[in-house]
Amino acid sequence: MTHDSPSPVLIVGSMAFDDLDLPTGSARDVVGGSATYSAYAASVFAPVRLVAVVGDDFPAAELDRLAARGVDTSGVERAAGKTFRWAGRYDANLASRATLDTQLNVFASFHPKIPAAHRATPLVLLGNIHPALQLEVLDQLTSPKLVVADTMNLWIDTEPKLLAQLLERVDLLVINEEEARQLAGIHNISRAAREIMTRGPRRLVIKRGEYGALLFDGGHPLFAPAFPLEDVIDPTGAGDSFAGAMIGWLAALGSTDADALRQAVMVGSAAASYCVEAVGNARLCTLEAREVRERLDAFRHLLYVPTPQG
Amino acid sequence: MTHDSPSPVLIVGSMAFDDLDLPTGSARDVVGGSATYSAYAASVFAPVRLVAVVGDDFPAAELDRLAARGVDTSGVERAAGKTFRWAGRYDANLASRATLDTQLNVFASFHPKIPAAHRATPLVLLGNIHPALQLEVLDQLTSPKLVVADTMNLWIDTEPKLLAQLLERVDLLVINEEEARQLAGIHNISRAAREIMTRGPRRLVIKRGEYGALLFDGGHPLFAPAFPLEDVIDPTGAGDSFAGAMIGWLAALGSTDADALRQAVMVGSAAASYCVEAVGNARLCTLEAREVRERLDAFRHLLYVPTPQG
Repeated sequence: MTHDSPSPVLIVGSMAFDDLDLPTGSARDVVGGSATYSAYAASVFAPVRLVAVVGDDFPAAELDRLAARGVDTSGVERAAGKTFRWAGRYDANLASRATLDTQLNVFASFHPKIPAAHRATPLVLLGNIHPALQLEVLDQLTSPKLVVADTMNLWIDTEPKLLAQLLERVDLLVINEEEARQLAGIHNISRAAREIMTRGPRRLVIKRGEYGALLFDGGHPLFAPAFPLEDVIDPTGAGDSFAGAMIGWLAALGSTDADALRQAVMVGSAAASYCVEAVGNARLCTLEAREVRERLDAFRHLLYVPTPQG
Repeated sequence: MTHDSPSPVLIVGSMAFDDLDLPTGSARDVVGGSATYSAYAASVFAPVRLVAVVGDDFPAAELDRLAARGVDTSGVERAAGKTFRWAGRYDANLASRATLDTQLNVFASFHPKIPAAHRATPLVLLGNIHPALQLEVLDQLTSPKLVVADTMNLWIDTEPKLLAQLLERVDLLVINEEEARQLAGIHNISRAAREIMTRGPRRLVIKRGEYGALLFDGGHPLFAPAFPLEDVIDPTGAGDSFAGAMIGWLAALGSTDADALRQAVMVGSAAASYCVEAVGNARLCTLEAREVRERLDAFRHLLYVPTPQG
């Protein structure tokens, strides 16, 4: 199902230390950030070129772990100072989380620099960072084939003009349901999707956590399930691993057509279901393509597909 | 796909006048109640035997409308006094509703009497009424083949013992997500399902509104989509029409096996998607099997089913 030599994907985003208060306990200095999760997930299927910034406190061993997974970390800048930190507390049901602390640290003055050798990467994932930085990335690229981007409520609130500029240059936007509603100013999710797609992206994935994801691409929407897990440990990074696995699968398929994207959304859901099974990237970082395929196969049993009516 | 002479289904529940404050306007004296919605939906596929109570203010023409759809209303008792009334207000997004008023009226002293000719009906749907009344119905029946029941947060709170007795005699429980969590005392929905199924029902449908429904039956769960509608007018009765169409479809198929039930859950979702397109039962009451099949067919396009991996 996959090419022997998939094309690489370029991933730009944050790398961080996270302090996580989870119902199962607290975890400190967990290596996180959108780019880290996305890179691990994409690396299951394709070579990854990572662009991010870390501080002088970031262990070289962590970059080595990424490199061992086929992630080219030559675009990860090491700056003087501390790595970006985030602290959050999940409720007892993992249904919501509160940010306890954010320290931008070296991220505050970060401007992504795409290595010359990576500027023609065909598939690009812009993790959830300031839209001005996402635009700076696009300005450095040579006609990417597919630009995938995430964003968040903060930028929808505070940077609507920059975000509007970004959306005009994004092929596939991947956001969660509340962000979609906020961005469109429309509650009905099908209508919100239609509104957002008038602003640039021809394709839109709306993530709904345990309810799965919806893909809108102008044809029939895809209603993708989430895997019904009995043991969810840590939702951190689920959305980033969804997007990473999705773009990695597209690279492996060598296609970004409608059918490839439908497959890729299911693969994203499968990868995210593994990510949440352990704290941080502890499960994700050893994920194998075989395991994703097994879960993908299990999705078959979750669906009933009516036969065409005469 | 359906038998020429489907077996009848027995539906017991409430009939009511509803006053609905909807974002699109207010509607007064809308004929509602769980039994009404379920009966209209089931009647699309099978003959229905309806047991409920109305007051002397209930128009005979409304019973005639049901009868014209193949609903046997001989079990609908007409009592002296006013019909059960419910008044509710939906928020601007139809995401939640508040009860403004409930008047039990003739329902306060109702004890369902199953006509002798209907006591051997093989498929039975117990709409959301007091569990004592649901038990009274079961006591009057002659070995039903499949007992489907709904309940609600009120009875989970106030009648745990009666509800426990009921669950032991129910084959298929159909409740919404919050009710499932409350009933099980477990937030994780897969674990909640497993807990509930230790209490009697071998099968469980958990309705999730716009997120679809989950079917648990001991095998692989079914992740059934909701149809992504752009125009939702009135969610009242969606769950009741889901359950009604589901049991009607089983009757039409002449089977309650695992595959039949998976089909029936999809049919329930399809019927509910029509119900919410108009105020009250205005759309549901003219629903045709052909239309349900069309929407069922459209579900095919909403799903991507991975091919088995080598």
